[in-house]
Amino acid sequence: MADPARLSINQATTREQHSLAQAIAAYSQAGVRGISIWRDKLADCGLDEAVRMIGDSGLGVSGLCRGGMFPGADTASRQANIDDNLVAIDEAAALGADCVVLVCGGLPDGSKDLAGAREMIRDGLGAILPHARDAGVPLAIEPLHPMYAADRCAINTLGQALDLCDQLGEGLGVAVDVYHLWWDPDLEAQIRRAGERTLAFHVCDWLVPTTDLLLDRGMMGDGVIDIRQIRDWVDRTGYDGLIEVEIFSAENWWKRPGDEVIRTCQERFEETV
Amino acid sequence: MADPARLSINQATTREQHSLAQAIAAYSQAGVRGISIWRDKLADCGLDEAVRMIGDSGLGVSGLCRGGMFPGADTASRQANIDDNLVAIDEAAALGADCVVLVCGGLPDGSKDLAGAREMIRDGLGAILPHARDAGVPLAIEPLHPMYAADRCAINTLGQALDLCDQLGEGLGVAVDVYHLWWDPDLEAQIRRAGERTLAFHVCDWLVPTTDLLLDRGMMGDGVIDIRQIRDWVDRTGYDGLIEVEIFSAENWWKRPGDEVIRTCQERFEETV
Repeated sequence: MADPARLSINQATTREQHSLAQAIAAYSQAGVRGISIWRDKLADCGLDEAVRMIGDSGLGVSGLCRGGMFPGADTASRQANIDDNLVAIDEAAALGADCVVLVCGGLPDGSKDLAGAREMIRDGLGAILPHARDAGVPLAIEPLHPMYAADRCAINTLGQALDLCDQLGEGLGVAVDVYHLWWDPDLEAQIRRAGERTLAFHVCDWLVPTTDLLLDRGMMGDGVIDIRQIRDWVDRTGYDGLIEVEIFSAENWWKRPGDEVIRTCQERFEETV
Repeated sequence: MADPARLSINQATTREQHSLAQAIAAYSQAGVRGISIWRDKLADCGLDEAVRMIGDSGLGVSGLCRGGMFPGADTASRQANIDDNLVAIDEAAALGADCVVLVCGGLPDGSKDLAGAREMIRDGLGAILPHARDAGVPLAIEPLHPMYAADRCAINTLGQALDLCDQLGEGLGVAVDVYHLWWDPDLEAQIRRAGERTLAFHVCDWLVPTTDLLLDRGMMGDGVIDIRQIRDWVDRTGYDGLIEVEIFSAENWWKRPGDEVIRTCQERFEETV
């Protein structure tokens, strides 16, 4: 079983219950050692205040969510996306985050050119990588489940993400999320291939049935993913960082008291991760 | 654009409107040349009557849906699944179907062993293949979208399906469905690899947003799939058979008059396939 000190909670897991200040307080009080921060919550709080609170709390920041979203219908919109990523990198540097998590974006409005969207992603990554290197902030490409290829992320396997890392080089790595990748028959081999480019490891569970494509993720243990098996593959690459629980659950966990959600994350982490 | 004479309609597209007899009559009357038949509808009608009606109609049968569902929690349930596939093969032979479409099955109840389920699928295919060869009925493995890995089909890429074909040999091929495969960055290469093992080609569209994992497929042209591009890749393998429209759409197409659905399939086939 994984060391409980490695548990980090992505604040989206209690997004309906907590502001950033409340999440930092509640996670710390429960003995959780890490948090992943969302930029909309960060904006509500203000960067300086967030930096101060994180420093006081001693929480590790397993990621800043999120950069990416590179494709756009025209040059101006793609440049705006790049500019926004540069800000995210600066925020991550200020927070001391382990990485910026990149949800790379899907098809531009009206487009059916998936290969073209993938080229825009590669070009966008290339455009922001120098600034990330200068800032010392690793960029974690998060391959998303193929059901998000159209509207959220056209990078849909770990192999694809690693191909981009191979092409673009230092400063780029991957976020391995069991929800997005558990089905892939090539997963073990690709995790091995990732090696020290693994920058983040995310857990939750795949429910059967799944009633919503976006907001029906399960708590670890409530679904069908063999999380411990995948965690073992990831650990064998030498990854010993935080393990982040990220659950979007509009009809279940977002409706429960925050403390219950946190406690359940801790219990299930010990039982299943 | 594809020859309109290649249009086949999977009867699931009008499953709420038509019995098998009604579907055969309506499709024929509209000038459609092919149908794919579901076994529940076939059972309602009776095999002998269905064979007679199909013969009288002159419709091609692009597939019998469905065999597969090989995994099971114990030997007895797996054998029952195999036995059911043997019956499906006999039915397909009687109907002169181009293939039995295999939806191979997901995790057995309570299991998280996806690799094990995949072994059960391979073993099940091996068990039914001799009978299929004797009957002269090709078996088409249909890789399903990764969002169905848990509960419907653990074969989730065309590459995986072709690996099984490579292992098990003659009599086995693939059904290429744009809905399940459009996101795959390796799709063009795997279609080329499939070559003459392409036994069926299915079209519909991926809607944005998709509101249900199973029953919200789109009419061609209403979504984001570049269907003509994929059809071109498939045709280059030498495939010149029927092209089947298969749309599960509980809240839209299943609620419209059957004739409107058929006419729309014909129009969109010309415009987008």
